[in-house]
Amino acid sequence: MNGAESLVRTLVAGGVDVCFTNPGTSEMHFVAALDRVEGMRCVLGLFEGVVTGAADGYFRMKGTPASTLLHLGPGLANGLANLHNAKKARSGIVNIVGQHATYHIGFNAPLTSDIEGLARPMSDWVRTSPSAKAVAADGAAAIAAAKSAPPQIATLILPADTAWNEADGIAQVPTEAQRPSYSADAVEKAAKILHAHGPETLVLMTAGALTEQALTFAQQIAGKTGCRVMGQTYHPRMARGAGRFSIDRIPYVIEQALPILKNYKHIVLVEANDPVAFFAYPNKPSMLKAEGTEVHRMTAWGENSAAALEALAGHLGAKAADVKPQPLAELIKPTGALNHTTIAQAIAYAIPENAIVVDESITTGRGFFPPTAAAKPHDWLQNMGGSIGFSTPVATGAAVACPDRKVMCLVGDGSAMYTIQSLWTQARENLNVVTVVFANRIYQILRGEFDGVGAGEPGQRAQDMLKIDRPTLDFVAMAKGMGVPGRAVTTADEFNAALAEANAEYGPRLIEVQM
Amino acid sequence: MNGAESLVRTLVAGGVDVCFTNPGTSEMHFVAALDRVEGMRCVLGLFEGVVTGAADGYFRMKGTPASTLLHLGPGLANGLANLHNAKKARSGIVNIVGQHATYHIGFNAPLTSDIEGLARPMSDWVRTSPSAKAVAADGAAAIAAAKSAPPQIATLILPADTAWNEADGIAQVPTEAQRPSYSADAVEKAAKILHAHGPETLVLMTAGALTEQALTFAQQIAGKTGCRVMGQTYHPRMARGAGRFSIDRIPYVIEQALPILKNYKHIVLVEANDPVAFFAYPNKPSMLKAEGTEVHRMTAWGENSAAALEALAGHLGAKAADVKPQPLAELIKPTGALNHTTIAQAIAYAIPENAIVVDESITTGRGFFPPTAAAKPHDWLQNMGGSIGFSTPVATGAAVACPDRKVMCLVGDGSAMYTIQSLWTQARENLNVVTVVFANRIYQILRGEFDGVGAGEPGQRAQDMLKIDRPTLDFVAMAKGMGVPGRAVTTADEFNAALAEANAEYGPRLIEVQM
Repeated sequence: MNGAESLVRTLVAGGVDVCFTNPGTSEMHFVAALDRVEGMRCVLGLFEGVVTGAADGYFRMKGTPASTLLHLGPGLANGLANLHNAKKARSGIVNIVGQHATYHIGFNAPLTSDIEGLARPMSDWVRTSPSAKAVAADGAAAIAAAKSAPPQIATLILPADTAWNEADGIAQVPTEAQRPSYSADAVEKAAKILHAHGPETLVLMTAGALTEQALTFAQQIAGKTGCRVMGQTYHPRMARGAGRFSIDRIPYVIEQALPILKNYKHIVLVEANDPVAFFAYPNKPSMLKAEGTEVHRMTAWGENSAAALEALAGHLGAKAADVKPQPLAELIKPTGALNHTTIAQAIAYAIPENAIVVDESITTGRGFFPPTAAAKPHDWLQNMGGSIGFSTPVATGAAVACPDRKVMCLVGDGSAMYTIQSLWTQARENLNVVTVVFANRIYQILRGEFDGVGAGEPGQRAQDMLKIDRPTLDFVAMAKGMGVPGRAVTTADEFNAALAEANAEYGPRLIEVQM
Repeated sequence: MNGAESLVRTLVAGGVDVCFTNPGTSEMHFVAALDRVEGMRCVLGLFEGVVTGAADGYFRMKGTPASTLLHLGPGLANGLANLHNAKKARSGIVNIVGQHATYHIGFNAPLTSDIEGLARPMSDWVRTSPSAKAVAADGAAAIAAAKSAPPQIATLILPADTAWNEADGIAQVPTEAQRPSYSADAVEKAAKILHAHGPETLVLMTAGALTEQALTFAQQIAGKTGCRVMGQTYHPRMARGAGRFSIDRIPYVIEQALPILKNYKHIVLVEANDPVAFFAYPNKPSMLKAEGTEVHRMTAWGENSAAALEALAGHLGAKAADVKPQPLAELIKPTGALNHTTIAQAIAYAIPENAIVVDESITTGRGFFPPTAAAKPHDWLQNMGGSIGFSTPVATGAAVACPDRKVMCLVGDGSAMYTIQSLWTQARENLNVVTVVFANRIYQILRGEFDGVGAGEPGQRAQDMLKIDRPTLDFVAMAKGMGVPGRAVTTADEFNAALAEANAEYGPRLIEVQM
């Protein structure tokens, strides 16, 4: 068995049985090994940003890492933006990046580059395997890193000769660590704060605190103490919809966030970060909390927030009976013109039971949360790293992870163009994804940011950098070009019909919402 | 004047008057400055790989650097693969990469990343501007680096507050260095080698040795001494076509390269690299020259090879009269079925006078050189870094640099999908580019490499990683989606007609060659 085969066998034995790939010459022995080893599902992407984003989406839904196969430094580079997003979401991924044969690197052939240097900024763990006999153990260490708590982006660089030379066999992945616990002291301190200052306390949550179960405990605690429970602005995954505790998020716009946060003298962080503005703006603060607000961390990312919240509820004597009913918007099937309100209503109405919503709707989607709180139960995935081109790959990977669930990918037209190649992979694998493109023909968020940074009124040249209306992008044509059926809609009724049609069928669809 | 305006004014004053952009929030003050400063042409790309590749193509044709505007670490990351190619081609580029405000970086907002770390592997020069008052001088230094000999990839990182705070004014770019010379000793030594061992000597050339003028001197030297003149496998730009000295290149395939190189006991390098295999293969050499072959460098990259070749011709007493006539293939207008031969003939027949050919035709194009040697005079641009997704952006930038010339972009279907967004910029700017996509529905080069690395016969799973035929990519539909008229052809006659039609019109067109 050569090094490549020892690695593939180690991956499969270690539970990493999906590989999102865009290989090149230096990875051919790895590709050949896929023929000889049973149990690895390979999913080809036509661009590496699709590959890495898919691995992110896969992890978020499956909870275990997928692998990627990338071609040398430039192939990794093309995947870095979505690795950035995955790293900020604490998704575990095992990247396999090809490298020239060890003895060939010094000759500075055209594709030679500093792969470790490229990998480090967007990886938690980086290693170049030195020999075929080391590959299996290095692969096992990469899997262990990807599965650690919190999970890591592990990048294993595989020189071609370590793939084709003779190896010793497979390696065992160190036994998975137990789901980590939490600090009982931190919970006790949180209980004291909430007991004494409930209504003046904000419980700020993300990640593991946003499962249906964890949210239930949070709802009991809120009912018992009068505290406010909120999410940070973006989350890797959030259980939402009818029957789940619906919480607001800290608004993206600073002017909206500050008045909310100034109401609280205490903030209890449940995996969440200290509330910080997404960007800096002249004469506006970076930190969103009021001066003098005390911040207490109850759990860090990777700790067991559901268990910590249960313990906190116990300390406070909070029970199911404490839960206060939530006023939720009713589901409305909209009619008439498309606008931000009718679009949000149509989405809320259409979300199927147990759907996965991948949200990169940016400005169009700022109002999606209130109406969808009453939608059928679903999971909502967001971009944690802010690099656009996130959603169509993540939707692809989520659909690979959960073939029995409908994936709704909500994406702005500007964002959709970064990784539009995802559609081809969705067609190839017959993935159950409906991509909804909000075609407002502008980087609308930048138009807002232009005001936000105090840059004045944009003139013609600045507007040309913000508007993408010339020429008009025809997403239905592009989808057709990649094998995905699509249709454009211009009214709420057409949008309702297109969503119903897409939900009634299994497989990829695209809807272009012309605004 | 704020820092952003001081930078834009410094760029324009320094002769950098084109900016390929894909901006975000942190770059809004730079975008605003574009309204206030006359003289900067901004060209929007929908993906950063388009932006950086366009800057590469612009430099290759114009000989002076363009700037790019990229959004933070992930925006830079998306542009790195084509910066890799540009760096290997020694193209000068001034990248402006936005960064969070200096005081905001420490808060680890979602888009925070190690931008300098990302920039270094694909840049020659990296600097983060520390203050608004430093921005203009830093910009001038970046321009100087981009214009140095050899030119450099200069990446200037611009924290948002250095853009919006008050600056002191513009900065002067240090006077351009004189076009560098060459070593008279090295030329004299080359003359001695050629005088004594002409027929046993290979003169291996690239870059500045491939202008029409430099090739003329090389042709005289070959005629006088009996030496062989060849190009390395790939070149940033090569003057070709009728009336120009046509030289062969070292074949990509090792088995073809070795028998050629073993004929020579001496190699004179004119900017070229020591001949090295593109990839390593088991039991095949990395270096392509025979053992014992003596290698002599006459000029390094960035030296004046045309002047050195002229001096060399003088030393050898080589004159125009020494030039031997070259047997060139005749131009044939092919008919019948499309195959590698008829495709090459159709291209050669159609190349318009003074065209720019951007070549990423990979396996389909391996036979393009002989027939096109007799085509109308043109420049031929190739991928120096091996990262695919090179050609459509480079064609875009070449067309911006040379609006009076037709650009023919020859690209494989696999390669075209990495940076397909180029088509939209071509439509937006009405660029005179005809994109010819060779749709063989496979990463054909990898099928060859699978054999080359001795991986055996690919099974179903390996084939699925090489073939891209499921679903079929419809490039005409994708082009329509981005505003570029296109047509598919299935016979040589249709291909001839489509090329003639595209060449008769100004503006972007796409031809899908179904093979």
